[in-house]
Amino acid sequence: SQISASRLGLAVFLNRSYNEIENVCVSANPSKDIDGLSQFTEKYFSQTLDHFNFNSMGNGTFSQRYLITDQYWEKGHGPIFFYTGNEGDIWEFALNSGFITELAAQQKALVIFAEHRYYGRSLPFGNNSFSIPQISLLTVEQALADYVVMITELKQQLEATLSPVIVFGGSYGGMLSVYMRLKYPNKVAGALAASAPILSTAGLGDPQQFFRDVTADFEGITPKCRDAVRGAFHQLKELAEHQGYSRIQSEFALCKPPTSAKDIQQLYGLLRNAFTLMAMLDYPYSTHFMGNMPANPVKVACETMLSGSDLLANLRNTAGIVYNSTGLLTCFDLYSLYVECADPTGCGLGFDSQAWDYQACTEINLCYESNNVTDMFPPITFTEKERELYCSKRWGVLPRPGWLKAQFWGDALSTASNIIFSNGDLDPWANGGVRKSLSSSLIAINIPGGAHHLDLRGSDDADPESVIKARKTEADIIAHWVQMERTRLQSI
Amino acid sequence: SQISASRLGLAVFLNRSYNEIENVCVSANPSKDIDGLSQFTEKYFSQTLDHFNFNSMGNGTFSQRYLITDQYWEKGHGPIFFYTGNEGDIWEFALNSGFITELAAQQKALVIFAEHRYYGRSLPFGNNSFSIPQISLLTVEQALADYVVMITELKQQLEATLSPVIVFGGSYGGMLSVYMRLKYPNKVAGALAASAPILSTAGLGDPQQFFRDVTADFEGITPKCRDAVRGAFHQLKELAEHQGYSRIQSEFALCKPPTSAKDIQQLYGLLRNAFTLMAMLDYPYSTHFMGNMPANPVKVACETMLSGSDLLANLRNTAGIVYNSTGLLTCFDLYSLYVECADPTGCGLGFDSQAWDYQACTEINLCYESNNVTDMFPPITFTEKERELYCSKRWGVLPRPGWLKAQFWGDALSTASNIIFSNGDLDPWANGGVRKSLSSSLIAINIPGGAHHLDLRGSDDADPESVIKARKTEADIIAHWVQMERTRLQSI
Repeated sequence: SQISASRLGLAVFLNRSYNEIENVCVSANPSKDIDGLSQFTEKYFSQTLDHFNFNSMGNGTFSQRYLITDQYWEKGHGPIFFYTGNEGDIWEFALNSGFITELAAQQKALVIFAEHRYYGRSLPFGNNSFSIPQISLLTVEQALADYVVMITELKQQLEATLSPVIVFGGSYGGMLSVYMRLKYPNKVAGALAASAPILSTAGLGDPQQFFRDVTADFEGITPKCRDAVRGAFHQLKELAEHQGYSRIQSEFALCKPPTSAKDIQQLYGLLRNAFTLMAMLDYPYSTHFMGNMPANPVKVACETMLSGSDLLANLRNTAGIVYNSTGLLTCFDLYSLYVECADPTGCGLGFDSQAWDYQACTEINLCYESNNVTDMFPPITFTEKERELYCSKRWGVLPRPGWLKAQFWGDALSTASNIIFSNGDLDPWANGGVRKSLSSSLIAINIPGGAHHLDLRGSDDADPESVIKARKTEADIIAHWVQMERTRLQSI
Repeated sequence: SQISASRLGLAVFLNRSYNEIENVCVSANPSKDIDGLSQFTEKYFSQTLDHFNFNSMGNGTFSQRYLITDQYWEKGHGPIFFYTGNEGDIWEFALNSGFITELAAQQKALVIFAEHRYYGRSLPFGNNSFSIPQISLLTVEQALADYVVMITELKQQLEATLSPVIVFGGSYGGMLSVYMRLKYPNKVAGALAASAPILSTAGLGDPQQFFRDVTADFEGITPKCRDAVRGAFHQLKELAEHQGYSRIQSEFALCKPPTSAKDIQQLYGLLRNAFTLMAMLDYPYSTHFMGNMPANPVKVACETMLSGSDLLANLRNTAGIVYNSTGLLTCFDLYSLYVECADPTGCGLGFDSQAWDYQACTEINLCYESNNVTDMFPPITFTEKERELYCSKRWGVLPRPGWLKAQFWGDALSTASNIIFSNGDLDPWANGGVRKSLSSSLIAINIPGGAHHLDLRGSDDADPESVIKARKTEADIIAHWVQMERTRLQSI
């Protein structure tokens, strides 16, 4: 069985299903990767369909999934740690954010992981959610309103009106956590935003940044690794230009030979995406988050790239780390392993990928390019104009590139407070986020040797000192926020 | 000719049209009531129809009206004073907010008055805007997004990116100014919210507060005045209970005799509304804002109420101050002078009143009652249940009573900054707003002897010392905000 997941648009191919994962955990045999699953109870919340239009759906509702555990909670007094779910099945985030439950145990908190509308099982219109116009209730603003309504009602239900709420999120989920604190400080005392590219997605980035930073990770192992990747892509390009399609098929173990420049572009995208994934998920231990990754996948990739003189074979085998981790695939199908979309870093596969594609076509700006000059990949452009053409054709929408910046303050954050922006320097998303503290309560934490929101993961023997220290700092700051908010809530 | 206007739902009957008002001003004969009209140029802005749904209208636009004057502006450097238009024709607010242009002259500011969508001439679907579902793009959030988009684009167009923006508003417009600062401090350095009932409209009020405070104004002249009003309503009730309908017709100069309890309720509402208007508009000089009012109308009303022993005749003549200021009406038509709606303080007449009714049926909570115990009026209930029934029938919507509080922070304002909440103690809206400073930058200003946003009006010889002092304080605070924001903008 196969499922897909995306993280700011990551295409992944998993060789097991969620049911299998859940079974593993329910059988009380949790791996370190799947921290604390059995702690959570899965529930559904009756959520308003359209917060911004009273006529379109009346006061119609849909079932929004959330996971909850009160096993550490000092009832009615302890804080609430609320994960603002992002673009995927909420179990995946709960399973890979063990820090939050570890912190809950320390600080006697209730933990809630809320699933983002249009992802996982929180589909407002079931399997029909991805049609036009049903898809149109998928916006950042609707998602934030969902969380505010859910927090307000659950606090009532749980008799927790005096419990401070801290929001947590990774990646796009971290963006949502920031936005929650910006827009709803009445409900949320502080936000831990891990690896949240709030600047680049607001159009405040450099289109070359992302793939330059992916490249830097491989270069960081050794410049020879970068050169080998670039060399392999060069050989592939030469073959393609001379119609060496059958050679390409055999070198890359493709199920069908490429027959057009379009197929070659697709292959470029698929291969580039493998490097993206390994850079993002370059954890010091093997993981099953958005795919099966070995420990230190970038190092493994570079060893593979430098393992012999056949660069094309090395490139194929490196892609196989991502796409064929189980070794069960006998050939690569170009169009089922990777789908081009409005996010050049990948949208994943399946329903979740459609939802993310729509978000990348509307509010979230992800116009990254590779150019083979500032990065090691084939040139693949994705301009605002190309985005417009794609999005109007695919979804009947035009992006509004300035909207996110106006709506969520861009880099004009000085009036905000109580936000931690954590980033790992291995993460290609990091430089799309806030890297320097903006005030005493807008705190940037850098995690040397950290990949994509490593700090949110449960503690592991292989953790670098940097992330241990980051988590400690985060814990102290959050405890302080909780204390301040408790004083405020008691004074009302 | 007749037009209507509303202010948090005020029903008014004017005996002249806007064209006439404009002609008066264009003829360079401005009364003190119509400050600075000729300064403004009327323009239209191409505004996004639906900010929160990319499919419903695509990127379709409508023409949003705004008024602008740069005659005082130090181009590119001076601040921008932006009036967040409320529920009516924007000219009316520009004509009656002379303080803003006076302050612009002092502080070298550009002045913009932006018209609220669905009011005045800013109708997204022309005269069809008040149908279902066309009406559904009328929300507070859409209006705020309009203003953010307009500020952003006009600053670009006018090469004013370094100009600090201060928002101003009265009543619901003041609520919008507060919300702008809460939600968009990236765009707005501070807000002067005059007579903004942000607490009561969020459901944090007492249903008896409004008409109790209207009553207090008349009682403040002399308790005999309150007693006379109560006595007159008592006589009317006695008549109605004994089917004295023809006597009621003659006493109240009604065009048609009442024939049912419903007609009597309508008469109660119409009469109560006259007192509401006079309390709100109890300015020390005659005005033409939302009707023609004599100077000190509450005092005039009490003189009328106490002018002879025929209480019913006195009550009729008191209502005539509001409904027949020109003396041209020969009889009162019960259903054309006042329309019941989801705002017990009145929705006005015409298109604007329909828009306001919709807002009172969705986000804005206005469940005020009179009961003849805490006020001098006949008991008229308006419970949440009655609101639901009315709104589902009239507009096919159900109100969301908790939404405004969650969305705009209710009384949990402590993380906000740079807001002035000004209120006059004659204003029945005052106690629905913030009366005490919440921090050094969330400043409540009380104006003894002031009616509904008196401080926003241009200076007048009859102004009490209190409002002169309030305006001076406001000017100083705003100058400080502008200075701080300029520093911030220059540092980016």
